[in-house]
Amino acid sequence: MMKPYQEMTREELLAEQKSLKAAYKKHEQSKLKLDMSRGKPSQEQLDLSMGMMDVLSSDSDLKCEDGTDCRNYGVLDGIWEAKVLLGDMIECHPDNILIYGNSSLNVMYDTISRSMTHGVMGSTPWSKLGKVKFLCPVPGYDRHFAITEYFGIEMINVPMLLTGPDMDLVEKLVSEDETIKGIWCVPKYSNPQGITYSDETVRRFARLKPAAKDFRIYWDNAYGVHHLYDIDQDNLVEILAECKRAGNPDMVYKFCSTSKITFSGSGIAALATSPNNLEEIKRQMSLATIGHDKVNQLRHVRFFGDIYGMTEHMRKHADILRPKFEMILDTFDRELADLGVGSWIRPKGGYFICFEALDGCARSIVSMAKGAGLVMTPAGAPFPYGKDPRDSVIRIAPSYPTLEDLKMATDIFVICVKLVSINKILKEKQQAE
Amino acid sequence: MMKPYQEMTREELLAEQKSLKAAYKKHEQSKLKLDMSRGKPSQEQLDLSMGMMDVLSSDSDLKCEDGTDCRNYGVLDGIWEAKVLLGDMIECHPDNILIYGNSSLNVMYDTISRSMTHGVMGSTPWSKLGKVKFLCPVPGYDRHFAITEYFGIEMINVPMLLTGPDMDLVEKLVSEDETIKGIWCVPKYSNPQGITYSDETVRRFARLKPAAKDFRIYWDNAYGVHHLYDIDQDNLVEILAECKRAGNPDMVYKFCSTSKITFSGSGIAALATSPNNLEEIKRQMSLATIGHDKVNQLRHVRFFGDIYGMTEHMRKHADILRPKFEMILDTFDRELADLGVGSWIRPKGGYFICFEALDGCARSIVSMAKGAGLVMTPAGAPFPYGKDPRDSVIRIAPSYPTLEDLKMATDIFVICVKLVSINKILKEKQQAE
Repeated sequence: MMKPYQEMTREELLAEQKSLKAAYKKHEQSKLKLDMSRGKPSQEQLDLSMGMMDVLSSDSDLKCEDGTDCRNYGVLDGIWEAKVLLGDMIECHPDNILIYGNSSLNVMYDTISRSMTHGVMGSTPWSKLGKVKFLCPVPGYDRHFAITEYFGIEMINVPMLLTGPDMDLVEKLVSEDETIKGIWCVPKYSNPQGITYSDETVRRFARLKPAAKDFRIYWDNAYGVHHLYDIDQDNLVEILAECKRAGNPDMVYKFCSTSKITFSGSGIAALATSPNNLEEIKRQMSLATIGHDKVNQLRHVRFFGDIYGMTEHMRKHADILRPKFEMILDTFDRELADLGVGSWIRPKGGYFICFEALDGCARSIVSMAKGAGLVMTPAGAPFPYGKDPRDSVIRIAPSYPTLEDLKMATDIFVICVKLVSINKILKEKQQAE
Repeated sequence: MMKPYQEMTREELLAEQKSLKAAYKKHEQSKLKLDMSRGKPSQEQLDLSMGMMDVLSSDSDLKCEDGTDCRNYGVLDGIWEAKVLLGDMIECHPDNILIYGNSSLNVMYDTISRSMTHGVMGSTPWSKLGKVKFLCPVPGYDRHFAITEYFGIEMINVPMLLTGPDMDLVEKLVSEDETIKGIWCVPKYSNPQGITYSDETVRRFARLKPAAKDFRIYWDNAYGVHHLYDIDQDNLVEILAECKRAGNPDMVYKFCSTSKITFSGSGIAALATSPNNLEEIKRQMSLATIGHDKVNQLRHVRFFGDIYGMTEHMRKHADILRPKFEMILDTFDRELADLGVGSWIRPKGGYFICFEALDGCARSIVSMAKGAGLVMTPAGAPFPYGKDPRDSVIRIAPSYPTLEDLKMATDIFVICVKLVSINKILKEKQQAE
């Protein structure tokens, strides 16, 4: 076991610093180009879905079960068998589901945009209100925050606990302030921490008593079936059913897609919500489009067959991702755990590992890593307005690089964490003298 | 040559009415189900694109020319080769093009929606203005009008002439009223009349001097390559280039898609506009999505090869559509031309024939047709708020039914036109007595 840096003498730290600097220099000179910045599937993962290109051919019948010709116009809300498949995927009845195009982010954007121009189920359009606010559990997903920022919605940070967002704070804010219209959630294997909301958290969500009638929970279930292990999986209480039980059937929009299941740019997205919300959304959708790509919906259905097919497919993704996650986490355990220079959670699924550095160190670590050819997600990105109040959170995306490259990247990252932490501690020691 | 109904005596009209009623009754009893209501391609047309399902297989390299893996995230504005193909299709440089998902209607909706929430290139968001108006050449496309109505935009009718919208009126209104922010245009083989705007009309469009800085022309080039004949084609002056020449480079958004070229629900859409507009739109797009379906873009490129491939493909569509159009138009010429009961234009492309009945007759004709099992586009649909001020316009969509069915449908339609016209004339004669 190594000694925590805080307990080392100045001399010990300087010696450590010296050897780390030499290691860093070596990396710097080898002119690497590594990228751990975005949650993109690797080529190997994409190869798993190449069969998608074969399930439909010129000999195929492109009719769906009810006889609809998927090649033509029509079917606003998606073909039934796609609703069944994605319903099974996110544990909702197909009647509660709308199938969209290739991007669930686009569905979220549209949902906010529609609320701005038309309100929510008869409420005042948000663009007509003086102020609109959203709660943002932090750290969270940068693209969520970018949407709310674009629409001029004020964002309020809510700390993430190991059980999900701080529900005491959420309950208080939501019940007191009717300008709060929503909260962004990635409830399972959250981005970036990999936390799954506890049963209690979900139940408290479902029982919220919002001051705003048009308050909605934006439940981005992006990683619902993205487990790393076959048995040792997190479980998330199904929010639609829970909201219904709690007498709040209309309070949640649930989003998902197959982006990280089949091809990232060519999947299908879905929204699940109550019949009241569906009715409103379908009315708008009928103006915006005649329908989404049904051939691609059919392609997904024919490729997977059913949810068992998808589960088997996700097992193959897990086999590729698991060694990457474990390598990084094991390295952190081995190299960093004793040093008192940061903390992390060992997620059981999702696409990210979140490293929490010492306060004030995240930017420096990311910048130092860049110097050695390793691109990380910009520090601050997981926070509204890009501002991490403690400058401590770094998101790590293990999926895209090869395991080989990832080992190198993790080495560099560890060196940078150590060096920046030593610099900080040395500086503090100097100031204390 | 038959005598015009107006010149017939009451007795002659009653005799004609009697034989038409008998013919109608026969149709009524045969319980047909015919549909000439929507501009959907027929099964035979869709079959032309079945090769789309074979151009990509699990053995294919899904990289595009610049090496991008089309299966993964990325490439916000579309792959280059798709821009080239659709650029050739609508006579624009690929640099001026954004490729979207499967629906150009969706692109138009988004364009209006963005203007509502964020204005146009720095102008006040339309949702913050007291009043916003659009000019609507009539008859026009119902789904355009539905979008503007949904956003509470006031619509002003502008009559269509044989050369396009009445430009005297357009110029006057646009230059005087700064609440007029746009005009909906289907400039080539217009919906529903099949009119192509004359060179002069396009040049006058490009030279508009709008009072509103954020005025835009919404140029829905839906039928740009949808000719019925190989040589005898309408030509449309390219509006982007013309606007640039006229010193109004930012004044137009040009929309198109392959919906009626490949599969209606699974095509690719595009927008062409100036660099300034592109910059603004891409900024928003980067918030709404990571990118559109690149695999489908690649599929289109590989299927057509280039614009020559698409031209050959459109020739096959024409071979299917032409007999349908000609049969209807020939029947009208034969059965209706001499009677003075309506007028029509013989289009050289597009998806519709527009029948202009005697004033006050459109609703009755559509309703009578329905009684004999023939569904037409609702009378009034081609007008804002569904209100045809003269109740005379009927849109006919020849594409979907088989030629066989279409013959039957045309027979029924002709009978209904004659009967309703006779009823009107008899009533007028009676009132005059």
